[in-house]
Amino acid sequence: MSDAIVKQIEEQGAEVRRLKGDKASTEDAKTEAIQKLLGLKLAYKEATGEDYVAPNARQAKPPKQQAQKPEVRKQTLLGVGTRKDDNYSEWYSEVITKAEMIEYYDVSGCYVLRPWSFAVWESIQEWFDSRIKKLGVKNCYFPMFVSNAALEREKTHIADFAPEVAWVTRAGNSEMAEPVAIRPTSETVMYPSYKKWVQSHRDLPIKLNQWCNVVRWEFKHPTPFLRTREFLWQEGHTAYANAADAEKEVFQILDLYAGVYNDLLAIPVVKGRKSEKEKFAGGDFTTTVEAYVACNGRGIQGATSHHLGQNFSKMFEISYEDPSGEGERAYAWQNSWGLSTRSIGAMIMVHGDDKGLVLPPRVAAVQVIVVPVGFKTSNKDSLFDAVDKVTKELVAGGVKAEHDLRENYNAGWKFNHWELKGVPIRFEVGPNDLAKKQVTAVIRHNGEKQQVSMDGIVASVKTLLDDIHTQMYNKALAQRDAHLKTTTDIEEFKKHLDEKCIILSPFCGLAECEEKIKNASTREDGEGAQMGAKTLCIPLEQPKQALPSKCLFPSCTEKAKAFALFGRSY
Amino acid sequence: MSDAIVKQIEEQGAEVRRLKGDKASTEDAKTEAIQKLLGLKLAYKEATGEDYVAPNARQAKPPKQQAQKPEVRKQTLLGVGTRKDDNYSEWYSEVITKAEMIEYYDVSGCYVLRPWSFAVWESIQEWFDSRIKKLGVKNCYFPMFVSNAALEREKTHIADFAPEVAWVTRAGNSEMAEPVAIRPTSETVMYPSYKKWVQSHRDLPIKLNQWCNVVRWEFKHPTPFLRTREFLWQEGHTAYANAADAEKEVFQILDLYAGVYNDLLAIPVVKGRKSEKEKFAGGDFTTTVEAYVACNGRGIQGATSHHLGQNFSKMFEISYEDPSGEGERAYAWQNSWGLSTRSIGAMIMVHGDDKGLVLPPRVAAVQVIVVPVGFKTSNKDSLFDAVDKVTKELVAGGVKAEHDLRENYNAGWKFNHWELKGVPIRFEVGPNDLAKKQVTAVIRHNGEKQQVSMDGIVASVKTLLDDIHTQMYNKALAQRDAHLKTTTDIEEFKKHLDEKCIILSPFCGLAECEEKIKNASTREDGEGAQMGAKTLCIPLEQPKQALPSKCLFPSCTEKAKAFALFGRSY
Repeated sequence: MSDAIVKQIEEQGAEVRRLKGDKASTEDAKTEAIQKLLGLKLAYKEATGEDYVAPNARQAKPPKQQAQKPEVRKQTLLGVGTRKDDNYSEWYSEVITKAEMIEYYDVSGCYVLRPWSFAVWESIQEWFDSRIKKLGVKNCYFPMFVSNAALEREKTHIADFAPEVAWVTRAGNSEMAEPVAIRPTSETVMYPSYKKWVQSHRDLPIKLNQWCNVVRWEFKHPTPFLRTREFLWQEGHTAYANAADAEKEVFQILDLYAGVYNDLLAIPVVKGRKSEKEKFAGGDFTTTVEAYVACNGRGIQGATSHHLGQNFSKMFEISYEDPSGEGERAYAWQNSWGLSTRSIGAMIMVHGDDKGLVLPPRVAAVQVIVVPVGFKTSNKDSLFDAVDKVTKELVAGGVKAEHDLRENYNAGWKFNHWELKGVPIRFEVGPNDLAKKQVTAVIRHNGEKQQVSMDGIVASVKTLLDDIHTQMYNKALAQRDAHLKTTTDIEEFKKHLDEKCIILSPFCGLAECEEKIKNASTREDGEGAQMGAKTLCIPLEQPKQALPSKCLFPSCTEKAKAFALFGRSY
Repeated sequence: MSDAIVKQIEEQGAEVRRLKGDKASTEDAKTEAIQKLLGLKLAYKEATGEDYVAPNARQAKPPKQQAQKPEVRKQTLLGVGTRKDDNYSEWYSEVITKAEMIEYYDVSGCYVLRPWSFAVWESIQEWFDSRIKKLGVKNCYFPMFVSNAALEREKTHIADFAPEVAWVTRAGNSEMAEPVAIRPTSETVMYPSYKKWVQSHRDLPIKLNQWCNVVRWEFKHPTPFLRTREFLWQEGHTAYANAADAEKEVFQILDLYAGVYNDLLAIPVVKGRKSEKEKFAGGDFTTTVEAYVACNGRGIQGATSHHLGQNFSKMFEISYEDPSGEGERAYAWQNSWGLSTRSIGAMIMVHGDDKGLVLPPRVAAVQVIVVPVGFKTSNKDSLFDAVDKVTKELVAGGVKAEHDLRENYNAGWKFNHWELKGVPIRFEVGPNDLAKKQVTAVIRHNGEKQQVSMDGIVASVKTLLDDIHTQMYNKALAQRDAHLKTTTDIEEFKKHLDEKCIILSPFCGLAECEEKIKNASTREDGEGAQMGAKTLCIPLEQPKQALPSKCLFPSCTEKAKAFALFGRSY
């Protein structure tokens, strides 16, 4: 197997070198090619236990490893050294480490979520958890291990996950006779219990959720938050006695997911259904919220809410005697829905800028950082007291405020530091501000300055935080809308795609046709280096214009069923 | 290996048969022996993949499996069939399944935490999380996987955990060149990052916590909540520049752990230090809160807060240039502390009774269940309206109240149902109550009835819930104190132990002497069948009487260092 990988690595390496020398190739194409190369090297390491070393480099120093990157980065200066538009991939790596969101780890594809990023997750958890509880959903916890027998019960489902399942085969020094899998998702973990619990229609609905870790041992190149081997999520699993109630819930949850993006992360999303090709394996239909990342023009799936129909209930025998029939078995109608820490990656990609992270106010661990400026020995005490007082007032008023009174750093360093970390508002408190009973507020996302009176400062700050949220959302929306095109022509479609757009086009809905569109839109200047477009979703809200009868793909003879949103995608 | 297990199973089987025929043997001795036998059978199954079948039973039906129990139980009637004092082990299994705390699962040692038990955990999380945040601790998330290199860095530590570590060796169909372990605890996961983060004394303290799952693949007989292969916990990991600050925190956390037991779970605990033999491997000292379970006279470790000293910081090089020395390296002083879902098991064991679960009010998912009684067609609507109104009033006032308006169950069934589930207060609302503008409250833990006026009912209920908490705590305290003995005599010590007591005795502190005391107190009527005593802790608050100079163990020539609390233990 490793010989085949070596060959692939060599070919891909040549491709990367070619792209780097080709002025016509895009940044995206290069990034894609490099990521594919890194993915192949990762597969090599998995298979052999050793880093891949190129033949002509065997005597040279070993290649730089992903896991060692942070050690090197630790030495670099404060601030982001790469512009987002120059190389978003490098920019992303710098931001997440320097803003203290992520620490790299010595198991590939696994990352440390530091408090600065975990606080975002806690905000999302609090918001979403309280809302699903109002819908009658209860939290629980199912085991992370799943037996092979349960895992393989639903064939379509497991076929999708099997290549990525991690297996525990040994405990201490003993080989286990029956290895157990680690959940990639918990349908097969939970539904045997659902079978036990459902004896009558009175046992329905069941509405459960759990916040947990799952593992998908992917061999593609990992990216913190966006593609990791272990990630955190919530997974809701519900079962109803009738289809209508189940379907209603699918969309209630989808609205909550849209709320997480719109109302917390300040990211506009398109609500829609997944195509047959992209839907959850084993389910009836999948709904999704799709966001747009401007720097690379990609769509990103935000969260999905699936209607499983009766597929799983039939496989797992979640059934009861039909009260209306004569001894017939009725099967439950089921949903499952999940939102993961990937959302944090979307937030970083959408809002971050050349100075670093930009945190939307409602998920920021620190909303206001208060910094004393222009102090000397003579006025230091009074200034520090004022900083402390205003910080305490904000905290007492429910604002997440902190001060930075460190004396071993100057004000300029602190400004850079907290901008890098993306704190929405910086308060500067200097002797002049103090005299005028005000502070100077500097807004992170647009750099604007304004004076804020000490009188009623809590209310002013809360209004300001809401304004910032709205401005950030509107900015992202404008960016998204400027890159949202509609076309019925495949050539225009490809042009838009290369201009980092997502595109609404009439689509027949067939998986084979989607595959053809993907192949047609794959860039010809690099084999697999620049991925083709896929459907992000079929938007629930369709364009106002009439649907043409012809599908986007020229030779497709099926009728268009709806406008689908296409794009390159994470 | 399996031959050796077969021999052990046969010997232990003979022992169990002997104990069952011996009228002098205690229930505890029998339970111990059976549990050991089941543990051996589990080890056999792990090693061979097959259930152990006794030679003379090969033609008979296969032995009943643990995992199949719930299927059988599902058929039994409402209510607990076993008295707690008759067989606490059987009683426990019945209560946790019938009260819907646990569902059994097809991977040994793993259980489903249903919403009824998970809600207890959520209450504990909320209480503890808000308090550690006030201490400046921040939440984060580290990977569940740990490389072999990191795992083995601290030798004493890993020696303790190695036999129970679960290993992932395969992903999809590919064998991994370097298997990864699943965290049994996260010292070795986290501290390589701590090394990176500590460059100067200014980078300290680090105060992090995570709520997560951990895996310890034990081969002893598993018990839901109390001994499971996967469990949920929080683990705090902190690092300080000096020992005094670290040690102070150890006891601050210990006080919070005592608070979880006293103020939430209504369980009295003894705060103390672990002996050298029982302390956390690799740490300097371990503090603990120890509870007492009356039905079997055992101590149970409630939560532990460890001072790691500089052992881990030296192994993981968490160090900085000593600002006071000349280029010397100073090593961080570290703590780790954890509280797990085992606490829920202690709660069930301490408070449960022959009617089922008894939930302490502050962790109950439902604090008040409102049930209509004595309704007929004529008054049903008005009665149901009144039930709905009082429930809504309670919920609006912050009380966790629900009503049970199901018409397919009679009031008697509902009373039993909610008593089995341990709801602290039942409100009965009948025509007479309605006429008198009152409800009849029935208190779960003591069965007492009282009338509660509809006027100011929220305040009345809140007072009542607090009273119930205090009564439950005092009852558990009285039970504990009645079984807390002090002695300097080993014979009296053994007698107390067999009377289900825990015992304060002078102790030299040496591990070898503790081993001798354990052996001396192991019941002679069954090899290993009735475990010996170990130290639960050395209580921080020592008995008022003067410490004798002689250690408990007769032939010990060391001086007693303190009174230690001894007992049989989980």
